Amino acid sequence: MGTSLGMAITRAGGAVRFTDLNREHAELASARVGSSFEGMGDLFVAAVPTTFVGRVILEAFKSNLALNFTDLGSTKTNVQLEVSSFGVSELFCGGHPMAGSERSGPTGARSDLFEGRPWVITPSSKTSGQSLEAVRELVALVGALPVELTPEGHDRAVAEVSHGPQVLASLLASSLNQVDVSHLSIAGQGLRDTTRIAGSSPEVWASILSTNGAQVATFLEPIAEELALIIAALKAGDAEALKAFISRGNAGRDLIPGKHGLSIREYDQISVVLPDRPGQLALLFDIFSELKVNVEDISMEHSLGLPAGLIQLSLQVGHGEKTVQELIVRGWRAFTLAG
Amino acid sequence: MGTSLGMAITRAGGAVRFTDLNREHAELASARVGSSFEGMGDLFVAAVPTTFVGRVILEAFKSNLALNFTDLGSTKTNVQLEVSSFGVSELFCGGHPMAGSERSGPTGARSDLFEGRPWVITPSSKTSGQSLEAVRELVALVGALPVELTPEGHDRAVAEVSHGPQVLASLLASSLNQVDVSHLSIAGQGLRDTTRIAGSSPEVWASILSTNGAQVATFLEPIAEELALIIAALKAGDAEALKAFISRGNAGRDLIPGKHGLSIREYDQISVVLPDRPGQLALLFDIFSELKVNVEDISMEHSLGLPAGLIQLSLQVGHGEKTVQELIVRGWRAFTLAG
Repeated sequence: MGTSLGMAITRAGGAVRFTDLNREHAELASARVGSSFEGMGDLFVAAVPTTFVGRVILEAFKSNLALNFTDLGSTKTNVQLEVSSFGVSELFCGGHPMAGSERSGPTGARSDLFEGRPWVITPSSKTSGQSLEAVRELVALVGALPVELTPEGHDRAVAEVSHGPQVLASLLASSLNQVDVSHLSIAGQGLRDTTRIAGSSPEVWASILSTNGAQVATFLEPIAEELALIIAALKAGDAEALKAFISRGNAGRDLIPGKHGLSIREYDQISVVLPDRPGQLALLFDIFSELKVNVEDISMEHSLGLPAGLIQLSLQVGHGEKTVQELIVRGWRAFTLAG
Repeated sequence: MGTSLGMAITRAGGAVRFTDLNREHAELASARVGSSFEGMGDLFVAAVPTTFVGRVILEAFKSNLALNFTDLGSTKTNVQLEVSSFGVSELFCGGHPMAGSERSGPTGARSDLFEGRPWVITPSSKTSGQSLEAVRELVALVGALPVELTPEGHDRAVAEVSHGPQVLASLLASSLNQVDVSHLSIAGQGLRDTTRIAGSSPEVWASILSTNGAQVATFLEPIAEELALIIAALKAGDAEALKAFISRGNAGRDLIPGKHGLSIREYDQISVVLPDRPGQLALLFDIFSELKVNVEDISMEHSLGLPAGLIQLSLQVGHGEKTVQELIVRGWRAFTLAG
């Protein structure tokens, strides 16, 4: 992530110098980014795993590398505690770019990694205005969207929107190890979506979850309590309680912002049957081009052995019905979906 | 679903007659399907909610409507019990087409609803060979994929692959009602995928979950126990236990069959940055056509306010690296993803 950040900064006209315990690594990164400078920097960025941030910041401070210090770690309270214990709290303002850690294996760094992505800035009560401003400038420079939270607020937020969901997805996926494998042949898209992130790296997530364990546990405890109540309602066949529960889930789901901050439901949803022949998607998107319809979201559903794919598309509100009619006229099988 | 089934049967050359307490409904369906016949049928299909199946079958039996009886209900043990109590077990063989109940609102019936979809057939120990054969013929006629399970096996299987996942997704989504709404602005694709099915209908799911409550509870109880252990591991910061847990999730996830029965991981995964201009998807799929690359799966990722979309594509194994290189040559930003 350090190299990507260097590329993003130099692309925006900034200057970057790399340091690394391994001098060759730093030279390689400098060569890729094509930038360096002498003297003290404005902002030092510790682009290392969260458990190393403290000591790297301390070394950089002792070596007078920069005026201000930040990091890119995925948890913030632990880092803040370490930095405070070194007595450099005023010069430090933590940060966490939300740049897709789930896909951890791109073959190379890329300068657009941060564009349009949230970047959480986590000043502590001791952070100086100057250090906060230095981090804000970095975030603006690379095109990220700043979200300011306290270190504790950040750790609670990622427990809620990322770490907690990871635990529940892994829990569900893990339970499939006890399932008769013939039962899995009737699995649909719901199980696939619900367990997708259960494919994540055990090493990465053991580190994240153990570092933010208290917050994740705090998020999961009421969920465990509600799960016990739901299990009781299931055993009792209590349809009213179960209906209220599914309704609460509807309401919670509607709180998640979609693309451009729109709520997920503010699109027309259509569904198109896609013959399993090469080039069908190209034909379909040629029609959308011709109709000047923008596809806001796309997903593909497939069950075991399905000969034809079923594609779900989100279009701008008001375009669904019309597009379906145009597709049917052209010989496609297409349907609008109820909200 | 009854009208769709009628359309699928007549399309395949079969004859269909509709009956309904509301005579107009039956006449409307007959008119749409364009088929009817006189006298006793071979197979009566109760296309009604699971709680009405028993009495509908009994009425049909008393009226000599058909030689054999089946249903389309989403739970099977309850129906089997009712039918047994009426003394018509030999003539009854339950069924459950897995035809996307989650999208419950297509504007019209469609004859291809069952094509390539699993259809669980649930003979009881008392079902006659003739009744089982009649249901098998129906499933083959409409192009569905037969999966034979006992009524109890079916209810356990759907608890595992559908009803249990629904509860966990709704549980997570429900918990978002207690989250500071500013925290949701940093939500990524993981939370969206994990809660997608939490948007499902409370009425439909209250009925399903209360009817299959015992099996769903049996599936969820060990999950609740493991959740308690994971919360303890989180509080203890036990990285080893958490790593083993995420690994178990990896293994469970890999058991879910993908398209054509392939495991989900047996594809090359690539990622392409999509500029937020009309027609970009069409251009991209034109290139895939030209390269003769078949896209096996597609999904789109977007965070709050993301100006450019990130598309993830699954290609046949061996096509990923080559395709990425061709895309880069053509000026696209594309990446292969580590498995």
